[in-house]
Amino acid sequence: MPHHSPASVLRRHLLRGASLALGGAFAPRRADAELPGPPPWMTRQGGLVPEYGSPSPFEKSVIRRIRDKQPLPTVISNQTPLQDLTGIITPNGLHHARCHAGVPAIDPDAHRLLVHGLVERPLSFGMDDLVRFPSVSRLHFLECSGNTKFFKASLIKPDWTVQDTHGQVSCAEWTGVRLADVLAEAGVKPQAKWVLAEGADACAMARSVPIGKALDDAILAYAQNGERLRPENGYPLRLLLPGYEGNMSVKWLHRLKLGADPFETRDETAKYTDLLANGMAWQFNFVMEVKSVITHPSPGRDLKQPGFHEISGLAWSGRGRISRVEVSTDDGASWQDAVLQEPVLTKCLTRFRSPWIWDGGPAALLSRATDDAGEVQPTRASLLAARGENFTYHYNAITTWRVAQGGEVTLAV
Amino acid sequence: MPHHSPASVLRRHLLRGASLALGGAFAPRRADAELPGPPPWMTRQGGLVPEYGSPSPFEKSVIRRIRDKQPLPTVISNQTPLQDLTGIITPNGLHHARCHAGVPAIDPDAHRLLVHGLVERPLSFGMDDLVRFPSVSRLHFLECSGNTKFFKASLIKPDWTVQDTHGQVSCAEWTGVRLADVLAEAGVKPQAKWVLAEGADACAMARSVPIGKALDDAILAYAQNGERLRPENGYPLRLLLPGYEGNMSVKWLHRLKLGADPFETRDETAKYTDLLANGMAWQFNFVMEVKSVITHPSPGRDLKQPGFHEISGLAWSGRGRISRVEVSTDDGASWQDAVLQEPVLTKCLTRFRSPWIWDGGPAALLSRATDDAGEVQPTRASLLAARGENFTYHYNAITTWRVAQGGEVTLAV
Repeated sequence: MPHHSPASVLRRHLLRGASLALGGAFAPRRADAELPGPPPWMTRQGGLVPEYGSPSPFEKSVIRRIRDKQPLPTVISNQTPLQDLTGIITPNGLHHARCHAGVPAIDPDAHRLLVHGLVERPLSFGMDDLVRFPSVSRLHFLECSGNTKFFKASLIKPDWTVQDTHGQVSCAEWTGVRLADVLAEAGVKPQAKWVLAEGADACAMARSVPIGKALDDAILAYAQNGERLRPENGYPLRLLLPGYEGNMSVKWLHRLKLGADPFETRDETAKYTDLLANGMAWQFNFVMEVKSVITHPSPGRDLKQPGFHEISGLAWSGRGRISRVEVSTDDGASWQDAVLQEPVLTKCLTRFRSPWIWDGGPAALLSRATDDAGEVQPTRASLLAARGENFTYHYNAITTWRVAQGGEVTLAV
Repeated sequence: MPHHSPASVLRRHLLRGASLALGGAFAPRRADAELPGPPPWMTRQGGLVPEYGSPSPFEKSVIRRIRDKQPLPTVISNQTPLQDLTGIITPNGLHHARCHAGVPAIDPDAHRLLVHGLVERPLSFGMDDLVRFPSVSRLHFLECSGNTKFFKASLIKPDWTVQDTHGQVSCAEWTGVRLADVLAEAGVKPQAKWVLAEGADACAMARSVPIGKALDDAILAYAQNGERLRPENGYPLRLLLPGYEGNMSVKWLHRLKLGADPFETRDETAKYTDLLANGMAWQFNFVMEVKSVITHPSPGRDLKQPGFHEISGLAWSGRGRISRVEVSTDDGASWQDAVLQEPVLTKCLTRFRSPWIWDGGPAALLSRATDDAGEVQPTRASLLAARGENFTYHYNAITTWRVAQGGEVTLAV
C-alpha cells in the first residue's frame, strides 16, 4: 500500500464524504462512564419563546460593524461579520447595508412605484398590486462595489478582520416580481434602452440600468429570507440586479423611468465611477467579478493548537456559478481544490472547505476562485497592473492571511 | 390558431419563464407623466441601522403564534406564520419551536457533549472541539410530528389559518458536524444499534435514533441560516435528523449514548406514539411523509378581486426530493402541475406556484405533492381509512381551502 500522510487520508475521506477517523485530532476530553452532575440549566424550567426571536445573549459580539467613520451619521456603510458565520445564508439582522441618507421609515400602504418615460402606459403600482404578480424566489449575493478597499496600499490597516475587508457581501433568498413582467404591463417602447431606478430615501439614490439587464433577471424584491425586506435593505420594495454592484439594486424603489440614454445621475458620475491610469473615468462597470475569501481561519481568530483545521470560505461571481475554488497554505506555492458545498447556484455565495493539518509554524492562506464563465480570480499584482492605484471599486484579487508561528492570523493583503 | 383562454396563455408564459402581458390584470393606477410630490420620508434624513436588525414596525403582525393553550407556560408549541412568508427559508426569528420545559439559557463555554455507552472511547466534547471538526451545511425542513392536528374532526376549529394548521414546519440552512464523524472518534462498537440523544433542558428530552440514521445524514448542528442556533432552536447544539419528526432532532444536545436496543424513553413511549385501530401503539414512526399546503391564498387572506391570482405554497418530504406538485381549484375535479422553484433539494421545503384566474365564484383550492420515492400525498379519506381517528401524529393528507362567492377563504379540512 502506498504511504498516506494524515492530510491525504483526511482529504480522501472528506472528498468521499465518508466518515473521519482521526483518533483524537479534535481533542475532546476522555470521559468517565459515569455522567457528570446536571448543569444548572437542567435544574429549573427554562424561559419562554418570544413571538419574534433574537440570538442568544452569548452571541452579542456577532453584529454588523462600521469600519470607516463617515461625514454624517446617516451615511452608513456597515459590514457583515463573516468570521462568525457559516454556510451561505446571511441572517437578515446581519445583512450589510449601505445607506446614503439613512433608512426611510416607509408606510407600505402609502408606497407606490411609478413606471413612466418611454412606455406605452405610465403606471403607478401599490404594494398590493405588485404582490399580486407572479412571484419568483432566488438566492443571490449582494456586494457593495466598494467592498475590499485594497487598491491604495496606504489606506489598508493591518488590524482589519475579514468583516472589515470583505464584509460588504451578504446573501439571501430574495422574493419578488420579475421586472420584465412589470415593464410588459406598461409596454416598453422600442427606443427605450435604459431604465432609471430611483429610491425614496432623502437623497433619491438613482442609477441607470441597461434595458437588457432589466428584461433579463432583474427582480422587484419585496422579501428576503422569507419575510418582508428589512428597513435598511429597502423595505418595502427594492430593485435586485443579480451579480451587479450592490448600489444599483436600488432600495426603497419608487420610480422607474425608461429612456433612450443613461440618465447620468450623481450616483453614476460623481460616485461609483473609477479613475483609470490615463485619467479617464470608467463609468458603468456593473458586474462584480469572480472573488473569494477565507473566513475560517481569519484575522483575529488565531489558531489555538496545531493539527487539523478546516479552511472554509466564500466564493461568488456576478457572471454565474462558481466552478472551482483552490486553496493554498504556502503563499501560493501549491494549491489544492476545495470542496464546494451544494447547492452551487448562479450569482450566489458558494461555501468552500478544505482540510488542513497545521504544523504550528508560519503559513500563508489564500483562496482562488474560478467561475463558469472561465474567469479566474486575479492576483493583487495583476489586478493593480490592469487597474492602477486610483481605482476604488471592484477589487476582487486574491487575499492572503498570514499565520505566524504560535497561531496569530493577520491580514497580509 | 387554436383558441387560448387567458389562463392557458398565462400558464404558457409562466412555464416558459417569459414575461407576462396581461394588460391591466394587476390593476395599477394609470399615472400622469408628472411625478407626484415627494412622500414625507424623502423630505428628511432617515434613521440609523442597528448593529443587529429587526423587521419594520409595519410588519409587527408577522409573528409566531401559539394555537393551543398548554398546561404550563414552559410547555411551548408555536407556529410559523406561513401565510406571511415567501420562498423556502424561514427567518430564524420565526422558526417554529416546540419546547417541553422552556428554553434553557446555556453558556456555550460550559456546555459539553458526552458520547458514551457502546463505544471504544467515551468522549466529552466542548463546543470548541466540535467546531474544529469538518463542517457541512444543508438546507432542511423541520416539522413537528404533531403538525396539522386533523385526525379528530371534532378538534378542528373552522377559523384556523395556515399558521394554525401547518405552521409547525420551517426550513433553514443548518451547519454543523456529521454525527458519523463524531461517532468515529469515539469508535462505535459492533453491537451498537441505537443512539440515545438527550437534551440539556429541564425535562432531559430524549429519543432513540437508529444507528443507520446516525451514520447516514445526521448532523450535530450549531448554526442555522449562517448564525449560531437560536436559543429556542437548541443553542448551542442540536441534533438534526433530516426528514425525521422534529422532536427527534433533540435540542440543547448534551448526551449521546450508544446501545443495543432502543432506550424506551418517556418521549417515545408515553409520548410521540400513535394508537392504531386495533389498540396497539405505533412506536418509532420516524419519517415525515410527503406533504404540501397552499399558503397563498389561505384562510383569513380573502381574495379582494376577481382575475389573476398566483396560487403558491410549500411541499416537502422526509424521504427525499419533491418531484411534482399538482394544484386543483375545483375541489379535485381537475389538476394542473405547479411550477417548482429551483433549487429543489432533498428533505427541504420546495416552493410551488400555479397561476389562476379567479372568476369571482366559489372555488376549492387543493395541492397534492409527490416525492422522488414515488409517494403521493393521500386524500384525507384514504389517510383516515389507513390510520383511524386515534392517530395524533404524522397527518399529511391533502388540505382544502374553500373560496366563497365574494372571496372569503376558509378551512374546509
